[in-house]
Amino acid sequence: MPKVGIVMGSDSDLKVMGKAADMLDKFGIEYEMTIISAHRMPDIFFDYAKSAESKDYKVIIAGAGMAAHLPGMCAALFPMPVIGVPISGKNLDGMDAVYSIMQMPPGIPVATVAIDGGANAGILAAKILATSNPEILDKLKAYSEEMKETVQGKAEKLDKLGYKEYIKQM
Amino acid sequence: MPKVGIVMGSDSDLKVMGKAADMLDKFGIEYEMTIISAHRMPDIFFDYAKSAESKDYKVIIAGAGMAAHLPGMCAALFPMPVIGVPISGKNLDGMDAVYSIMQMPPGIPVATVAIDGGANAGILAAKILATSNPEILDKLKAYSEEMKETVQGKAEKLDKLGYKEYIKQM
Amino acid sequence: MPKVGIVMGSDSDLKVMGKAADMLDKFGIEYEMTIISAHRMPDIFFDYAKSAESKDYKVIIAGAGMAAHLPGMCAALFPMPVIGVPISGKNLDGMDAVYSIMQMPPGIPVATVAIDGGANAGILAAKILATSNPEILDKLKAYSEEMKETVQGKAEKLDKLGYKEYIKQM
Amino acid sequence: MPKVGIVMGSDSDLKVMGKAADMLDKFGIEYEMTIISAHRMPDIFFDYAKSAESKDYKVIIAGAGMAAHLPGMCAALFPMPVIGVPISGKNLDGMDAVYSIMQMPPGIPVATVAIDGGANAGILAAKILATSNPEILDKLKAYSEEMKETVQGKAEKLDKLGYKEYIKQM
Amino acid sequence: MPKVGIVMGSDSDLKVMGKAADMLDKFGIEYEMTIISAHRMPDIFFDYAKSAESKDYKVIIAGAGMAAHLPGMCAALFPMPVIGVPISGKNLDGMDAVYSIMQMPPGIPVATVAIDGGANAGILAAKILATSNPEILDKLKAYSEEMKETVQGKAEKLDKLGYKEYIKQM
Amino acid sequence: MPKVGIVMGSDSDLKVMGKAADMLDKFGIEYEMTIISAHRMPDIFFDYAKSAESKDYKVIIAGAGMAAHLPGMCAALFPMPVIGVPISGKNLDGMDAVYSIMQMPPGIPVATVAIDGGANAGILAAKILATSNPEILDKLKAYSEEMKETVQGKAEKLDKLGYKEYIKQM
Amino acid sequence: MPKVGIVMGSDSDLKVMGKAADMLDKFGIEYEMTIISAHRMPDIFFDYAKSAESKDYKVIIAGAGMAAHLPGMCAALFPMPVIGVPISGKNLDGMDAVYSIMQMPPGIPVATVAIDGGANAGILAAKILATSNPEILDKLKAYSEEMKETVQGKAEKLDKLGYKEYIKQM
Amino acid sequence: MPKVGIVMGSDSDLKVMGKAADMLDKFGIEYEMTIISAHRMPDIFFDYAKSAESKDYKVIIAGAGMAAHLPGMCAALFPMPVIGVPISGKNLDGMDAVYSIMQMPPGIPVATVAIDGGANAGILAAKILATSNPEILDKLKAYSEEMKETVQGKAEKLDKLGYKEYIKQM
Repeated sequence: MPKVGIVMGSDSDLKVMGKAADMLDKFGIEYEMTIISAHRMPDIFFDYAKSAESKDYKVIIAGAGMAAHLPGMCAALFPMPVIGVPISGKNLDGMDAVYSIMQMPPGIPVATVAIDGGANAGILAAKILATSNPEILDKLKAYSEEMKETVQGKAEKLDKLGYKEYIKQM
Repeated sequence: MPKVGIVMGSDSDLKVMGKAADMLDKFGIEYEMTIISAHRMPDIFFDYAKSAESKDYKVIIAGAGMAAHLPGMCAALFPMPVIGVPISGKNLDGMDAVYSIMQMPPGIPVATVAIDGGANAGILAAKILATSNPEILDKLKAYSEEMKETVQGKAEKLDKLGYKEYIKQM
Repeated sequence: MPKVGIVMGSDSDLKVMGKAADMLDKFGIEYEMTIISAHRMPDIFFDYAKSAESKDYKVIIAGAGMAAHLPGMCAALFPMPVIGVPISGKNLDGMDAVYSIMQMPPGIPVATVAIDGGANAGILAAKILATSNPEILDKLKAYSEEMKETVQGKAEKLDKLGYKEYIKQM
Repeated sequence: MPKVGIVMGSDSDLKVMGKAADMLDKFGIEYEMTIISAHRMPDIFFDYAKSAESKDYKVIIAGAGMAAHLPGMCAALFPMPVIGVPISGKNLDGMDAVYSIMQMPPGIPVATVAIDGGANAGILAAKILATSNPEILDKLKAYSEEMKETVQGKAEKLDKLGYKEYIKQM
Repeated sequence: MPKVGIVMGSDSDLKVMGKAADMLDKFGIEYEMTIISAHRMPDIFFDYAKSAESKDYKVIIAGAGMAAHLPGMCAALFPMPVIGVPISGKNLDGMDAVYSIMQMPPGIPVATVAIDGGANAGILAAKILATSNPEILDKLKAYSEEMKETVQGKAEKLDKLGYKEYIKQM
Repeated sequence: MPKVGIVMGSDSDLKVMGKAADMLDKFGIEYEMTIISAHRMPDIFFDYAKSAESKDYKVIIAGAGMAAHLPGMCAALFPMPVIGVPISGKNLDGMDAVYSIMQMPPGIPVATVAIDGGANAGILAAKILATSNPEILDKLKAYSEEMKETVQGKAEKLDKLGYKEYIKQM
Repeated sequence: MPKVGIVMGSDSDLKVMGKAADMLDKFGIEYEMTIISAHRMPDIFFDYAKSAESKDYKVIIAGAGMAAHLPGMCAALFPMPVIGVPISGKNLDGMDAVYSIMQMPPGIPVATVAIDGGANAGILAAKILATSNPEILDKLKAYSEEMKETVQGKAEKLDKLGYKEYIKQM
Repeated sequence: MPKVGIVMGSDSDLKVMGKAADMLDKFGIEYEMTIISAHRMPDIFFDYAKSAESKDYKVIIAGAGMAAHLPGMCAALFPMPVIGVPISGKNLDGMDAVYSIMQMPPGIPVATVAIDGGANAGILAAKILATSNPEILDKLKAYSEEMKETVQGKAEKLDKLGYKEYIKQM
């Protein structure tokens, strides 16, 4: 059974990264989640990234803020996809993390998602596994349908209530 | 045999997107490349994205500049991974494309790579397919080795020549 | 009777987009407001944008945040003016939406207004309809007068109270 | 017969603004083009903007760079739509003009198009007039078709030549 | 007696602009403060700026946010110095106002101060008048001394309390 | 006779700062121009700024690029107006200099002009001196007239030639 | 015994700069902390920076916000390392300070740390002194170990509690 | 004898990093320069950074562009100062590298210099060594004097030639 590794640089990233786990739970995908700082414990980090393949990880989701080296360093050591989640902090709205994660040099890509995009990272991992797993693919299609219905429900509510009443109820 | 779709909004994107194709060639991955504008031919685009699964596409690499909607709209219609390549133009250094591609709302992720990162998009597609294809995985590992040797060669050259001579020869 | 379509990607945009509706109400312009996500329900979105002309829409006001594809995709499918409202979110102050809406490639313009500029979108729709409707034009001129008087009232209040007292009363 | 006014702050804007005129020519829309600096000749500018309605202007396209006040000041004086074209200069990639044009306060919208987006400004003016002119509407639809065919031609060429040969011929 | 005009586009600018008035009060400089929107009342604005010289204004301090045209349009109509105060709003931290005020084209300078820099605008006006008024010059020198002493007082307090205690008392 | 000091941090700033001198020449204002680096020769710089008043300087125009401390440090030492010219360099389009010059803390304003705005710095110095010198004021008004006529000449040329021919002759 | 000087432009910087002191305390390094404004008390500042060497300072840590000249001016006057701490304020997230501190011209470097990075400034000072002080070097290594253990503790807690419970306890 | 390590991620960084070596040569400081990619050869990089102390390195100067992880990862593994040089590339003017280098999380500082600031990195390394080496300190003071004289020479040349002639000779 393929697994996803979820790793983050600090426990302050947990609220965002927890949404990735929620999504994997939703799609019935096994994952292991941990906190490893590439800067504060480089040896442990190295072991983690190098042993990921032997632990049957097929995808790593790495989230970090500021000078976010964790996703890119994972991608240097793990041969399968690394998804990077830039996390916003006190200043700069996460753009420091975006540049540190997205702007990888030729040869070592990181699949970057939106700032604080934990849920999307989980879905992207599912989409990657779905390339060889029809069951996950079906669940993704069902999820698309579900999202559509949620928005349709809001459209109907707006139609019924009018926007003034809808806003009042928010 | 899984295939990768490479699609771009304009032929001005071809130099960047050609590098994705170069990488897929290197890893022996089949691909189909075309030019489709989500804005100028929305019906054709819809057909393209909706029929991609039935054409055995497992990954779509979509590149675009400016208000780059092509990758995100592919991701809305295709259930497997879409890799987005933000392409720089006359102004803004590609940041308009980065925001249009990376900042996808919850539910519809795009795997964004570096600005003008065509080669990395091709490698990321290979990494995705490698999650279920040991042959591609081996080729990726060999490529990592090759990259390492290239840099080592440069380090040795620098050691031998000294930086002043090295710069002169650049 | 010409109509304006007001569409937004999420109900979180409703507070901003409600101001567009307020303005259309003020100018006596008929409108229909709904929530459609171009990403989460692309087929419904396509039908919406393609049938807009037959529903007598003359202008569409489309608001969205983040990678805001809704206005540009409307403009790809609807032959009359689309007004785009970039909506600010948790990060980036709406600049992701600005670039996704304003930086449209040649051939498919979106009339972009200020970030969170719902009221201005409504007024711009009225100005567009005023090009062939003298009654709306008169209402716009009256509204200009009204705005002038509001500011003049504040100037007089400042003159009377002095700035220290005026600030205290704010 | 409705007319479009095209106005720019400096003759250095002419290359961008000429593309707006090209588009209006294409759609058979009458226009008058001139150079007026809101800063260097404020009185002449005032007369221009105030008399625009009596000259049968239905839309003004105003382009300017740097602290681009021309579009916004037109919008303060002319009751119908003003389209603003932010023009890039030596520094800042046109973002100074974007902010000066797009970020209009409530009450006085400017329909902002892409940086250096002269052609889109012309098309947007046509779309505005098309709200009451079926002939222009037909021409816009034909132009959409034409754009689609142009891209399709490129897609076919790419299919025939392959990307390596296509790039060589660029 | 020379006078300073203080003008702002909206009463929401009053807290910032009031600090300019505070400074002029401190230096014993006469001023007149009002609210005029260049966009909402262009005729009144024109009269204001054109008659400023005849009212013995020697300097105008103009503050505005967003697409802040007020300072630049004053500078187009008033032949003596205009000081521009960019005012921050809900989004963009005042950078829209900075670009709209500072990036004036050759020929029409605006003396731009820091974002929300009302106090500095008042001091700059005093410095301008001090070029021909030794009394104001003396007051400015005294104010410099006063500022120095304020900081020295803080340094002594820090020295006495230590930083932990100082922070506690903040 | 009042004098203006023109000072810059490096001779690479000379092309921009020469335009300030051109303007002062045009208005018949005496000036002294020199190169002083606040960082490389802080003692000489201190003497320069402190003795400026005794040399009858009424205004200092200070231009610098990158971390541009020269204008602000002049403003800390000279009690009359300092005009700062942010100069663009290899990277960042002069925004590093803008922030270093414009964002002065309360108490020490610098009158910031546009990036690379040497000419505007010269004109602003003239406007400052015009507050007490009717002759300079008259020259400024004549210069305004001259600018107006230049633009009018271009408008007439455009009217005569048409934009296609005008562009060809550029 | 070598000393570190800690200097800041305002007491509003004290919370950030106090963390530098905390770190120096932790490593047993002597320091002197004061508040000096380069702009408001340039003479005192000059004396401070020039006498720092004779007071046995080996490193100066200088923190400032906005147009932050203090670190760079220290570096112009003190021949040993100056560490600059950009401090965020009401607007711009500290980017004004970053550019004012980091973008020093060739010849006068400032060792810039993260925005609001007081703790890192203290650690960097310790690292500098550790180049000639084995005792401090040992303490730095112990501190690295301590940081590693802190993160490991969090990883274990996450492993035990699961992320949902961990988040609840935050 | 203390040594400085100079390391860069790619030979395209050599022109910038060569200036650091030039400076160390000037101050008679021994250094070793090499090319190591943290991403393309993570094991070799780890060995490099971990063995640096035993090779008598007292400072590492690390330069890199884009998602520049090299300086920060050095700082995670080497207990003495790491100087980071952000290097500009095709897009973003080096801001991606600035954020990746400067925004290090608490505990692992990198001493960041200006974009493309190779020379300043060399000087900063010398300043660090000068904290325990009076000979290097003397050379730094002599270099300061030399820089001062260079600028003074330019000031005298400007005084003699006038700016028009000086510009012609540039």
